[in-house]
Amino acid sequence: MEIVSSPDRMRALTREFRAQGERIGFVPTMGALHEGHLSLINRARRVATRVVVSIFVNPAQFGPQEDYKSYPRNPERDAERARLAGAHVLYSPTFRDVYPPGYRTYVAVERFGTTLEGASRPGHFRGVATVVAKLLGRVAPHVVFLGQKDAQQAVLLKKMIEDLEMDVEIEICPTVREEDGLAMSSRNVYLDADERRAAPVVYRALRRAETAVTREGERQAERVLDLLREVLALEQSVSLDYAAVVDARTLEPLPRLRGEVLVAIAVCIGSTRLIDNVILKVEE
Amino acid sequence: MEIVSSPDRMRALTREFRAQGERIGFVPTMGALHEGHLSLINRARRVATRVVVSIFVNPAQFGPQEDYKSYPRNPERDAERARLAGAHVLYSPTFRDVYPPGYRTYVAVERFGTTLEGASRPGHFRGVATVVAKLLGRVAPHVVFLGQKDAQQAVLLKKMIEDLEMDVEIEICPTVREEDGLAMSSRNVYLDADERRAAPVVYRALRRAETAVTREGERQAERVLDLLREVLALEQSVSLDYAAVVDARTLEPLPRLRGEVLVAIAVCIGSTRLIDNVILKVEE
Repeated sequence: MEIVSSPDRMRALTREFRAQGERIGFVPTMGALHEGHLSLINRARRVATRVVVSIFVNPAQFGPQEDYKSYPRNPERDAERARLAGAHVLYSPTFRDVYPPGYRTYVAVERFGTTLEGASRPGHFRGVATVVAKLLGRVAPHVVFLGQKDAQQAVLLKKMIEDLEMDVEIEICPTVREEDGLAMSSRNVYLDADERRAAPVVYRALRRAETAVTREGERQAERVLDLLREVLALEQSVSLDYAAVVDARTLEPLPRLRGEVLVAIAVCIGSTRLIDNVILKVEE
Repeated sequence: MEIVSSPDRMRALTREFRAQGERIGFVPTMGALHEGHLSLINRARRVATRVVVSIFVNPAQFGPQEDYKSYPRNPERDAERARLAGAHVLYSPTFRDVYPPGYRTYVAVERFGTTLEGASRPGHFRGVATVVAKLLGRVAPHVVFLGQKDAQQAVLLKKMIEDLEMDVEIEICPTVREEDGLAMSSRNVYLDADERRAAPVVYRALRRAETAVTREGERQAERVLDLLREVLALEQSVSLDYAAVVDARTLEPLPRLRGEVLVAIAVCIGSTRLIDNVILKVEE
């Protein structure tokens, strides 16, 4: 595995791969690699012949009060994990490589970027879309792999790629969970022991919603959300930021469930903010 | 020359060219091709082995009171001119190809997009940046050719390409002028005979500014602009929208001229709005 920090070297590698007819799979990350990231790298290895993993903690997607400074960073362990998972290139540009002085260009996906997480974190998705557009420009992969855990990010980036006519495929891979159901997240390390014990309630609440829809035939979004909130209320240390039932492709609210439905949730446990979701296929 | 309207066909062609090791030159236009456009196609033929010309009148870059509907359109004559100039592909997508229902993604270049033309035409450059990002995504050229006449557009798109790390070179080609100095523009057809006779004053005013700087050693922007306005005042039918002296790379105002300087002007002649500019290299 080659570790690359220079954007020029990254471009040279990608041109070399393409000239050799290789198929480039790309896994963009903010580092702090966990099983979720490794599953993306594994999937990329099956679909592509060259796997590029990027690590860049992107300041443009953090709000001023958020955890940009404290976000977990461990470049040596990340490099070792990426190598063991079979990545061929680890691209980790510096802040100045990505946002040199006088940087001015931003990509925004309207509506997709201002609902749900975007409503709670103004500017977050402008930062995400911008940095991913840049990474796609630099790495020029054939396929990019994203995790379902960040459902809105995945839908929004799919929309950006389609709207900007970028020549790259996108594959969304399933959320990887701990045995008790907690979705893998780099932010889980923020949880203390009590918070960690409480955290699986998030997925239990989503499962309650799923059961209501798939087994009990519930189709009213408000009723589904009530059931979800009832489960969540069992853990007093967990406070709900939002829970929503939306169309999985457009992210528009669905008062009555139909088609492919995203049930998305964001909570705070102590000072840690976590998100999770399930996708339901609803037959009429 | 192949005329392509389908985005899928355009992508297939570009992939074929790249697989064959061809070098793709790209000339994006809004049609109404004149000598300025043809000079870009000629230049592209010398630098590239395959030349793609696009024609798309982009509604996103017109304000609600502007001339989107009346903008000159003549697809048959354009196709003939592009063919004679040696283009290999003429790509002319439809409105629905470029902005399908539910379209949401926009690219903005801050500051570069809100000064000069951007101040007079709010949203204009967001439309320009977005459509060019899309066309670059679709055509995936090695080099894109733009005219110096639209100086701010050229600088802004260069900035976008650099900021978004797009793998494409950009070449800015000299403004082509009528014998009396009027810069070639698709909008010149709007001028009636009297207006057409008055129009060359725009370039004469720019030349006065140039003489002041290069021959007379003037370095104060306000003095240069006064001289320019004096010339312009000789034609009563020509009203100034703005004249500005800015850094040619950053578009920031330069109270005192130094380095590479852009002198840019926008006027109205009757109901026709025209722009023009000169670049001056100022030695200290």
